[in-house]
Amino acid sequence: MTAQRAQRIVLASRPDGHVSPDNFRLETVDVPAPAEGEVLVKVHYLSLDPYMRGRMNESRSYAQPQPLGETMVGGTVGEVVASRHAGFEPGEHVVGNLGWTEYGVAKGAALQKVDTSRIPMSAYLGPVGMPGMTAWYGYRKIIAPKRASETIVVSAASGAVGSVVGQLAKIDGMRAVGIAGGPEKCAYVVDELGFDACVDYKQAKDLRELARLVRAATPDGVDGYFENVGGDVLNAVMARLNTFARVAVCGLISDYDNKPDEPARSAILNPAMFLVARFKMEGFIVSDHLDLWPEGLKELGGHVGGGRIKYRETVAEGLASAPDAFIGLLKGRNFGKQLVKLV
Amino acid sequence: MTAQRAQRIVLASRPDGHVSPDNFRLETVDVPAPAEGEVLVKVHYLSLDPYMRGRMNESRSYAQPQPLGETMVGGTVGEVVASRHAGFEPGEHVVGNLGWTEYGVAKGAALQKVDTSRIPMSAYLGPVGMPGMTAWYGYRKIIAPKRASETIVVSAASGAVGSVVGQLAKIDGMRAVGIAGGPEKCAYVVDELGFDACVDYKQAKDLRELARLVRAATPDGVDGYFENVGGDVLNAVMARLNTFARVAVCGLISDYDNKPDEPARSAILNPAMFLVARFKMEGFIVSDHLDLWPEGLKELGGHVGGGRIKYRETVAEGLASAPDAFIGLLKGRNFGKQLVKLV
Repeated sequence: MTAQRAQRIVLASRPDGHVSPDNFRLETVDVPAPAEGEVLVKVHYLSLDPYMRGRMNESRSYAQPQPLGETMVGGTVGEVVASRHAGFEPGEHVVGNLGWTEYGVAKGAALQKVDTSRIPMSAYLGPVGMPGMTAWYGYRKIIAPKRASETIVVSAASGAVGSVVGQLAKIDGMRAVGIAGGPEKCAYVVDELGFDACVDYKQAKDLRELARLVRAATPDGVDGYFENVGGDVLNAVMARLNTFARVAVCGLISDYDNKPDEPARSAILNPAMFLVARFKMEGFIVSDHLDLWPEGLKELGGHVGGGRIKYRETVAEGLASAPDAFIGLLKGRNFGKQLVKLV
Repeated sequence: MTAQRAQRIVLASRPDGHVSPDNFRLETVDVPAPAEGEVLVKVHYLSLDPYMRGRMNESRSYAQPQPLGETMVGGTVGEVVASRHAGFEPGEHVVGNLGWTEYGVAKGAALQKVDTSRIPMSAYLGPVGMPGMTAWYGYRKIIAPKRASETIVVSAASGAVGSVVGQLAKIDGMRAVGIAGGPEKCAYVVDELGFDACVDYKQAKDLRELARLVRAATPDGVDGYFENVGGDVLNAVMARLNTFARVAVCGLISDYDNKPDEPARSAILNPAMFLVARFKMEGFIVSDHLDLWPEGLKELGGHVGGGRIKYRETVAEGLASAPDAFIGLLKGRNFGKQLVKLV
């Protein structure tokens, strides 16, 4: 493997508010050689996810900041090209966290072999991967529906996480209501994914109008809410919560670009609802719950393989396209799971 | 019992913002006669509690609004003076919800006999009554300490609820930190109740200063927070929450006087903390959990009888003093449990 060259993208600078292409730098480096116990992987798909925005900041987040000058973190799926670990052979497909790079090495324990005979490789970065598990944990373990026909609302409903939340709710016999931006995404959520209703938040010019749209879509109130967005959407749904509702806070993408001293767009305006509805609100990140991945992935794999969970991807071509694709993701320009195809 | 007369206080009008004495009316009425299955009680002590403020509004709250022209709701302890229920005899002491009145009738099932040989009658409106159970439920069932030496913070720490929260935490070997208004209350919380520290929120002129005081009192962060107050206090403590912290929302007294269209003082300014700390926040009212009262009251009665839970009372004399005492409670002028002594 000596002297073979490949591309990677490093964090060049931290964003001041919005992310810009300047924050990234494309480099050409030697392909690394695996040490004893390590595996060299050729990356086929890179996953782009909102959590990466938090890591670009220096401030306290739920994860360590991304170091400057190092390969951007990120989930990947690819093919083993060299192995010094007894459990892996060239040609096998593996999921890992190799980052924004064409080739990466990892210890065997940090890679999971995946079966691509029944489920396409890219789905292991989507509904049968981290986004799917995120949906599964928040829905199954926090919202945890108590009875049939509860109303479950999810924001960013056409996205990689939200689309799975609503489809799990439908499989369970719940009323699933999505919130998404624009008529095309809303039509997809209802017509393709089978949600009962979808609120197009772009049709509301302020919180009051948005609250009216949410109210119309949730005539029996809201029993479970899966939050990806924050801001007005959070406040509009909160006003509809039923007694003993559960709110799973997965993301607050509307605030990710805030500057340190800027007030959060997501401020919860009426905490008295905590007493009116005696609801529970809980933040989570799925990597805190690795013990539950086997259980969750088994359920998700069955639903995806059986066609009960559908998914959609937006695929950018080539590593150099990753920064623009990531900025588009933060602005909601993707439709479904945002991937970068490297091979 | 015919023609005997007694006093009661009814809601005369709904407050526009702050409660005023005009919102109440003292009336003299016939003492009611018990029907079959009912008991006539002479009230010795009336409990004044912040929840009553919510019921004075017409808007949606966690309970039905208090009807105009009817006796104000409220917990009471008193003596049976006439009984048409086989389970009760004159001279027995009973807790009930007879309201702001000198005499009241209730069905036997709505009264609980109490043993005043070991615990004084008034304590059944405090640490061994609804406030004690409120503390017990939020602390034991929501905060639910996981390991020794967690830091538990409670606002309104010198009050009927907060004082019990902190003392339960100390009995369990936790670090208990109170938040209270003024040096006298803080000294009581630390010196008399045995909390490890107390923040005097009146020493801070803004959120930034308050946050600094809270930080100094919680060097290891906050694992559990029992919220009675809201506003700046809530935001200051939220910034200190550790990973997997639990917040029990019992009351938001700083907002109770808000007018309907006024923004809540308690707005949660930085919901991103839900992701940074993956904490849980849950509102509750203790009357949703009547099934747990026997378990809770048994523990509380043991601690109060054994002197491990101390309590303090502010006692107003005579029914006519109730409105002023209630307004004082909303302004934090009481010190410990606010009672009205009628006999």
